[in-house]
Amino acid sequence: MPDPKFQFQVDHVGVAVRSIEEALPFYRKALGLEAGHREEVASQGVRVAFLQAGQASIELLEPIGEEGPVAKFLRLRGPGLHHVAFRAGELAAQMERLRRAGLPPIESAPRPGARGHQVCFLPPRQAAGVLVELVSGGPGSLPSSR
Amino acid sequence: MPDPKFQFQVDHVGVAVRSIEEALPFYRKALGLEAGHREEVASQGVRVAFLQAGQASIELLEPIGEEGPVAKFLRLRGPGLHHVAFRAGELAAQMERLRRAGLPPIESAPRPGARGHQVCFLPPRQAAGVLVELVSGGPGSLPSSR
Repeated sequence: MPDPKFQFQVDHVGVAVRSIEEALPFYRKALGLEAGHREEVASQGVRVAFLQAGQASIELLEPIGEEGPVAKFLRLRGPGLHHVAFRAGELAAQMERLRRAGLPPIESAPRPGARGHQVCFLPPRQAAGVLVELVSGGPGSLPSSR
Repeated sequence: MPDPKFQFQVDHVGVAVRSIEEALPFYRKALGLEAGHREEVASQGVRVAFLQAGQASIELLEPIGEEGPVAKFLRLRGPGLHHVAFRAGELAAQMERLRRAGLPPIESAPRPGARGHQVCFLPPRQAAGVLVELVSGGPGSLPSSR
């Protein structure tokens, strides 16, 4: 299979925190970043805040309860870098391409994420331990090559 | 102290890997990213490869020996997200600003990093568990507000 002619762009870096409010002063004072969009993603058990930092942003993820994946991450590893997200053009087509390439996403179809985007995740075992999210839409996203 | 009028931009996301060569196929096949600049940073005990992904890039970090911080990270946590780097304008001035704000960098002065940049790191305990790197220069960097 020839290498596909596309280049995903970093959309955001997800950071697991115990408290968004307690994390914000560092980002404001040290890096000049402010919380923009905030949202509760009930299906994932998190509330999130996005801090725009150039073309990419930082997504602070705070668990709502004790059950979601971020609450579990915090129990196992403590606060810190959680995932990195890339902009993918036509997400369903990209997911099909990944399945054919032997790199199946965790989900079988795009699911709703923050900011009205469609998202999916790629398992860390494929990506040298990195949890990779793909998000559809947004500035800078590229169409699928298929 | 009034909030400074600046907004750092994400420069790159550092990923600790056991082997750059073994990690690259995922980034190529799944995300369309190719290794660009490669370098050995002997002072940090790593060889690195940068994969441009829009305005930001992914930096794969492979330990050279058993002693450096990335080798230690791999032993403790396994491969995965290691740090996030932001573009800072005048690095020495930013470091002085951070010291005055009670957020001192690990280093007392800028030190040479990859790609001819000057860099410093902020301790994870300040940033909700995230190791933050500041790099000087490069496209999109903003001048200090001081």
